[in-house]
Amino acid sequence: MSGEDAPAQEQNAVDQKQETKPAEEPKPEPPKTESAPDAAEAAATPAAAAATAEGKAAEEEEEAFAYRALVLTGYGGYDKVKLQVKKGRPALKADDVLVRVKACGLNFADLMARQGLYDRLPSPPFTPGMECSGLVEAVGEEVTDRKVGDKVMVLNRFGLWQEVAVVPASHTFLIPEGMGFEEAAALPVNYITAYMMLFDFGNLRPNQSVLVHAAAGGVGIAATQLCKTVKDVTVFGTASASKHETIGEGGVTHPIDYRTKDYVEEVRKISPKGLDIILDPLGGSDTHKAYNLLKPMGKLITYGTSNMLAGQKKNLLAVAKNWYHQFSIHTLSLIQGNKSVCGFHLGYLDGEMELITQVMNTVLDLYKQGKVKPRIDSTWHLEQVGDAMRKMQERNNIGKLVSSETFVPTSTRSRKEPRRFKDSYFFSPIRNDRDEEAVEGPWRTKNCWQEAPAAN
Amino acid sequence: MSGEDAPAQEQNAVDQKQETKPAEEPKPEPPKTESAPDAAEAAATPAAAAATAEGKAAEEEEEAFAYRALVLTGYGGYDKVKLQVKKGRPALKADDVLVRVKACGLNFADLMARQGLYDRLPSPPFTPGMECSGLVEAVGEEVTDRKVGDKVMVLNRFGLWQEVAVVPASHTFLIPEGMGFEEAAALPVNYITAYMMLFDFGNLRPNQSVLVHAAAGGVGIAATQLCKTVKDVTVFGTASASKHETIGEGGVTHPIDYRTKDYVEEVRKISPKGLDIILDPLGGSDTHKAYNLLKPMGKLITYGTSNMLAGQKKNLLAVAKNWYHQFSIHTLSLIQGNKSVCGFHLGYLDGEMELITQVMNTVLDLYKQGKVKPRIDSTWHLEQVGDAMRKMQERNNIGKLVSSETFVPTSTRSRKEPRRFKDSYFFSPIRNDRDEEAVEGPWRTKNCWQEAPAAN
Repeated sequence: MSGEDAPAQEQNAVDQKQETKPAEEPKPEPPKTESAPDAAEAAATPAAAAATAEGKAAEEEEEAFAYRALVLTGYGGYDKVKLQVKKGRPALKADDVLVRVKACGLNFADLMARQGLYDRLPSPPFTPGMECSGLVEAVGEEVTDRKVGDKVMVLNRFGLWQEVAVVPASHTFLIPEGMGFEEAAALPVNYITAYMMLFDFGNLRPNQSVLVHAAAGGVGIAATQLCKTVKDVTVFGTASASKHETIGEGGVTHPIDYRTKDYVEEVRKISPKGLDIILDPLGGSDTHKAYNLLKPMGKLITYGTSNMLAGQKKNLLAVAKNWYHQFSIHTLSLIQGNKSVCGFHLGYLDGEMELITQVMNTVLDLYKQGKVKPRIDSTWHLEQVGDAMRKMQERNNIGKLVSSETFVPTSTRSRKEPRRFKDSYFFSPIRNDRDEEAVEGPWRTKNCWQEAPAAN
Repeated sequence: MSGEDAPAQEQNAVDQKQETKPAEEPKPEPPKTESAPDAAEAAATPAAAAATAEGKAAEEEEEAFAYRALVLTGYGGYDKVKLQVKKGRPALKADDVLVRVKACGLNFADLMARQGLYDRLPSPPFTPGMECSGLVEAVGEEVTDRKVGDKVMVLNRFGLWQEVAVVPASHTFLIPEGMGFEEAAALPVNYITAYMMLFDFGNLRPNQSVLVHAAAGGVGIAATQLCKTVKDVTVFGTASASKHETIGEGGVTHPIDYRTKDYVEEVRKISPKGLDIILDPLGGSDTHKAYNLLKPMGKLITYGTSNMLAGQKKNLLAVAKNWYHQFSIHTLSLIQGNKSVCGFHLGYLDGEMELITQVMNTVLDLYKQGKVKPRIDSTWHLEQVGDAMRKMQERNNIGKLVSSETFVPTSTRSRKEPRRFKDSYFFSPIRNDRDEEAVEGPWRTKNCWQEAPAAN
């Protein structure tokens, strides 16, 4: 399925939809002189002829510019995501940057998107992908804080699973020294999500208890690491038994095998009064359980409906069941229970890039201090996106899946053969000396909102 | 209605219901000697006769011990709260203290209680009152951190509107130097409520915006003062126009007259994106408005249903209307909005005295620093409780109503005439130099949970 030609311009058009600002030509027009001849005269002069030749060359170069992109061609199974070739250099608006993509991250929301269960995206065909890393190859005329050659990670609503991506510069973050492209592609969605849930809605403090569902998943691992930055936090984490050793090493205090045990009972055995914070990516009846498992002043933060996902195509029964069991809460119940119910989805926060940038900077500080580190489960070629999606959907991963190092500029006409399936996963073991260091959490020593400029 | 005799022992029995621990005799029994004679013999000896005489004297003293108490005799209007005399010294359990009450605070929940709209109380007759201040007059045998003569403020589910109150020592807090009994009686409920809402659920940070309904009420004034301890927080406060100057001086950035203007429109004019935190004591349709007025990552904290209160007796139409408009929220809506909905009621937190004590200590630190100070609207005699309730229910107060200095020990049989209505309110002007000082809020410099012992 690699190398299919695709209507690249059309695709670009779709990708640009998200930007509401009018398109601008990034290159400034040459200033007209007082005595400028009219267009007909200009064409007759030698200077103008040279300009025309230049324009033709540029056009040809433009046409030669091509890159591979994953395209969701319709809702359904893994085969609906196809690798195609887009042609033509995408236009940059004044505040855009063009990124040569080196690695992309795969998220659970991408699985939802493929089945048509995520409403913040255009209709197919379009290029999915919410995060990637790469090199800045061109900048729009008003961009001052990024330059050609910068290594960046990118966060966008969609459109990043391709070798070349054009995004507003504000959606990029400089990759710190020592972080590879794979790590950089694995970081934004999971760590921003986990950070905002735990430290904004959750207000996590020392001595508290947290339940992390899917503790071996991308958000689960990020959340566990962030919990360990706060003193004496007890982490309950659900995962199948085979992953317990790994998540235990990663900081989960009490791993629970949700496939063989009732996690509510297991939690109650250890924490009879319930929990301070519950992160719920499941939805449906699990949200009800979570609510009942909260302590007074406890916070339930729901951030997905993964229970809707059963099989590779949309399962109407699973969707209906989830909808039927959808959690709904009356304020009187909240008042009497002294409880908080929060919803989080990074995909709906794309109007809040200032806030997200603050969070990202804090996460990157924690990374530099060695307190958080994305765990890469495995790397895949773009062609293998179907297999990668299957692995995530069947919950066989521990940590993040990324597509990596498959991006070869096609404009040079020297595209290498895609590499073979890379079955030697590389792991980024989670540091175990974190516990000793974790005396002070970010809420205490450095809160990402501490120096925030006025929001209003 | 003052001075009626009442079944004091029965009342005591009701008051003790809340304590599940078995009643214990506070005075240790004299240790028996090895050669102790049996009871019949003992009665015949001169020593025993002396003991019997002593016992009789104690009984007489016990009978002479009497004190005045407000009693809710049934649900209904202001006249349902009657002043009665209770007789007999209440028994102390090992961890109890007996407090000679000097001042009591009146809360909105007391108005709800009178109408039978608050379900955490025994059936009438019982003595209402959730907070008071006074002097410790006796301590149970296991009490080590309170002694006779200590000035304390008290927080309890009910039972504090009387001249003598017996409560667990853990429900008392030492009054700091320089704080009068009236202030002390006005502080616990309002400031603990406001603090926990803003800094636990709300996670208030610099540059954020807060809507405080009933900004001239007890919680409203406490919340405004606490908001000003955090840098550059914008406070929108609703109150009738006559109170705007006062609440403006107190720290409300934008006072809104909810009687003549649509507060949603007024807020949107200044903060088009909405608000970070909304404190909602109203319930019903106002909770819907609040939810829609939240920014992404905004928190709605609902802590009452004062919209249910229309007239001095239970208004079934108002209750039904509130119930009909009761806010109910689906998690999918929360997820898509990135919003949080929290419920708070201190009355349901009486199992969490450790947490409440931490909060109280932080509030008292802020008091000592001059950053918070209860504002007394007016003081009343116990006999005037009906008038005081009316004033609060008709929203004619600015700040707290307390009953004060009306408590005269009746055991000496020298009860003074109740004083006349005290129409010279004493105000505790809110400091206006707070803005300059408010560089660092409690969430930043000293969080009450910072040194919390392990919760699990």
